[in-house]
Amino acid sequence: MTATTPCCDFILFGALGDLARRKLLPALYQLEKAELLHKETRIIGVAREDMSDEAFRSKVHESLQKFMGKDALDLAVWERFAKRFKFIGFDLSDLAAYGALSVLRQQDSKRAVVSYLATPPQLFSAICKGLSEQGLNDENARIVLEKPLGHDLQSSCEINQRVGEYFSESQIYRIDHYLGKETVLNLLALRFANSIFSDQWSHNSIDHIQITAAEQVGVEGRWSYYDDAGQLRDMVQNHLLQVLALVAMEPPTRLDAESVREEKIKVLRSLRPITRHNVVDDTVRGQYTTGIAGEKKVPGYLDEEGAKAASTTETFVAIKAHIDNWRWSNVPFYLRTGKRMAQKRTEIVISFKPQPHNIFHETVNQLPPNRLVIRLQPDEGIEIQMMNKVPGLGKQMLLKPTTLDLSFDETFENQRIADAYERLLLEAIQGNQYLFVAREEVEHAWRWIDGIRAAWQQLDEAPKNYAAGSWGPSASVTLIAHDGREWDDDF
Amino acid sequence: MTATTPCCDFILFGALGDLARRKLLPALYQLEKAELLHKETRIIGVAREDMSDEAFRSKVHESLQKFMGKDALDLAVWERFAKRFKFIGFDLSDLAAYGALSVLRQQDSKRAVVSYLATPPQLFSAICKGLSEQGLNDENARIVLEKPLGHDLQSSCEINQRVGEYFSESQIYRIDHYLGKETVLNLLALRFANSIFSDQWSHNSIDHIQITAAEQVGVEGRWSYYDDAGQLRDMVQNHLLQVLALVAMEPPTRLDAESVREEKIKVLRSLRPITRHNVVDDTVRGQYTTGIAGEKKVPGYLDEEGAKAASTTETFVAIKAHIDNWRWSNVPFYLRTGKRMAQKRTEIVISFKPQPHNIFHETVNQLPPNRLVIRLQPDEGIEIQMMNKVPGLGKQMLLKPTTLDLSFDETFENQRIADAYERLLLEAIQGNQYLFVAREEVEHAWRWIDGIRAAWQQLDEAPKNYAAGSWGPSASVTLIAHDGREWDDDF
Repeated sequence: MTATTPCCDFILFGALGDLARRKLLPALYQLEKAELLHKETRIIGVAREDMSDEAFRSKVHESLQKFMGKDALDLAVWERFAKRFKFIGFDLSDLAAYGALSVLRQQDSKRAVVSYLATPPQLFSAICKGLSEQGLNDENARIVLEKPLGHDLQSSCEINQRVGEYFSESQIYRIDHYLGKETVLNLLALRFANSIFSDQWSHNSIDHIQITAAEQVGVEGRWSYYDDAGQLRDMVQNHLLQVLALVAMEPPTRLDAESVREEKIKVLRSLRPITRHNVVDDTVRGQYTTGIAGEKKVPGYLDEEGAKAASTTETFVAIKAHIDNWRWSNVPFYLRTGKRMAQKRTEIVISFKPQPHNIFHETVNQLPPNRLVIRLQPDEGIEIQMMNKVPGLGKQMLLKPTTLDLSFDETFENQRIADAYERLLLEAIQGNQYLFVAREEVEHAWRWIDGIRAAWQQLDEAPKNYAAGSWGPSASVTLIAHDGREWDDDF
Repeated sequence: MTATTPCCDFILFGALGDLARRKLLPALYQLEKAELLHKETRIIGVAREDMSDEAFRSKVHESLQKFMGKDALDLAVWERFAKRFKFIGFDLSDLAAYGALSVLRQQDSKRAVVSYLATPPQLFSAICKGLSEQGLNDENARIVLEKPLGHDLQSSCEINQRVGEYFSESQIYRIDHYLGKETVLNLLALRFANSIFSDQWSHNSIDHIQITAAEQVGVEGRWSYYDDAGQLRDMVQNHLLQVLALVAMEPPTRLDAESVREEKIKVLRSLRPITRHNVVDDTVRGQYTTGIAGEKKVPGYLDEEGAKAASTTETFVAIKAHIDNWRWSNVPFYLRTGKRMAQKRTEIVISFKPQPHNIFHETVNQLPPNRLVIRLQPDEGIEIQMMNKVPGLGKQMLLKPTTLDLSFDETFENQRIADAYERLLLEAIQGNQYLFVAREEVEHAWRWIDGIRAAWQQLDEAPKNYAAGSWGPSASVTLIAHDGREWDDDF
């Protein structure tokens, strides 16, 4: 396996930050454990602090112990892993200081350099420039960017522009960790390797699609940061639209970045704009009030620590989206995401059209339509809901809705599900870009989101209240009920 | 439950015969156990022998013990069951003797009378006439007929004609026990209650269909009887064509006999005739020679006890059938059945069309098409074969064919699967005719079968040999391979 994973220098900017400690270092450890890192790959932590390699290794060890949960550290793996680490400390905003990275250039010049920018985006420009001055932006170099990539189309263009001065698009890996989830990849297998699904993946057979990303947590002490963004920008612009694009895209010609991005871009470009004409019917903004989450009473959004009482930032949004193309004509995509909701659940529900005629009406009043549920959280999995005959003689034809786990295979049973970051780091190291987001995708997404925000501004209405621990404001039920449908909440 | 099962007199002609003892009496016992017989329902055994009710009850008890296998008799159930039995012995070919049945008429005149003719068809005419002379063919009377209903179109018409003199078509229940199987009913649920299947059930999505009924046994000491029939008439004319009709029929308007039969008849009428022009390409006849079955050496067909050395009767037949209608244009139905084959297996395999383009070619050379397998024997069940992503990071997109049990529901797990005869007896008692075969179906089937036999006769070729314990003559592999396909033998 190591033979196919190329050797690289992995430079982790923001190596002592929250993302690095919680996600990136544990993910790299898992790649080590799975023997997916080349034996000569080095990991260079970079941060403002001054610290010896040895002290950094201790910090890494500490983070792994804290964040890897029940996955205990394996001593032999750790020893292999620890040897890879170096630390270089300097002020990331000081261009002159980047000379400290020059040591990396003295190595084998064919070695790839993967720079992961786990820093605030304000530093992206300086880091890119600093890397380029050390020649660390040549054809062997890649750069991995974390969200938020701007807060609207203009700021996003500016970031992309600045990074683009030093790195070409083929070197830039924009992370959306939803794209690294096992189930999202299995969705691709399901869609494109099985004619029973690929043949039905259109308005001919599908009634509507729901994409829900419900969080149970609140703002988690980040009130000010969150209040500047809101749920639309924090969740819909990136995660929900990326998932929507994968669900809705035409079959790509190949499974490579160029083909996949091309199809995703076409979807994002086909999103019907939401303007002041349809914003009232097609969107719902919500803000949570006090309520019960996880069996304990929690404060409302405006009562959270650090809250400003006048905030009209939405913590919930429901959107009825339309993709104006041949495949999805008249198939609404209902998107919904919020904080402090009843459950933590992220799922895509494909609702097939109902049967036009019920020959089983004597035993089943109404045949429930088939549904394909792709669940990203809490338990990844793909299920289909269908009707089966209940075995037995009793009634002539007694039917029962049955839920089947489509991704289940007994040989997979004890297989560990990799965290999204493990996959994405591995793909970045291998130079596979198809699970990363193209500049054009980000910008089309912002264009659509900015339209919604502008329409909300013109509307000038406060968000609807919903109790923490509920499924959002009742207006979101009305939004979908208006079309004779309902949210998939009942399990 | 008993409330909905009407009270009747169930007259079992041939009550001491093989079918009654092996299948019908155990099935009635199971209905008793499940409390599906009305408390006043009586069971009247009729046979040539002279015997007291008590002696008949002992015979019944003996049969149940012998043929119910591990399903031990429950004493309380047996006591309830035994009370139902009467026995009336007389010579069934002697019309005058039917007066013995007149006692049944003295009962409640609204009571249904279900006469089950588990006798050779030569007696059907006499029994029908005898019943009618006792008034046991009025609107409350039904008659259940067992195969063989003739040996060609003409003889079948004659039987139907003679029975029809005394009973109208709505009173005649022609048994094909394949139609009583749990899985065959689940096929109807699958097809008509689930849009994911109903939408794909045509030449648009389906490449071809296979129906296999492989037996491991030989002629079982019935050489002469079997030699007069052969596999085409013994299995294809009834069981395979009935299954084919259910798989291929248009959605019936209602789940009643009229609607279902109408659709099945349309299928049988649309079977493309096999004549001397296509018989060589589209059929294979086989006859087994000595070989290994179930790990022991067994004789060839011509070496069986009682065999005539010159017999050219087929013990195997493979047919490529076409249904010339809109739905099934260019979708061949490959039928195959034989004795002394490698396994006992009866199954329908729906092969969907292959994916037109493979974006996973780096990890899977060729994507196997989706297949839906409806297995009637040995273990009833419905499975789908599809492609799934193998969880894990290793290769970018490693896929694996996965087999999912579509009929599985954990709440069904300990449910006993009823024998086909239990269901069919219950339906006959309840007066539901949709699982029984209409006269027109039988006659269309014979018309098609007679055409094949006539073409074989013109051809005047001996059947191809195949070793007992194999999958039939190699010509049957060639028949399907010629179309670039293969039999579903590999599991």
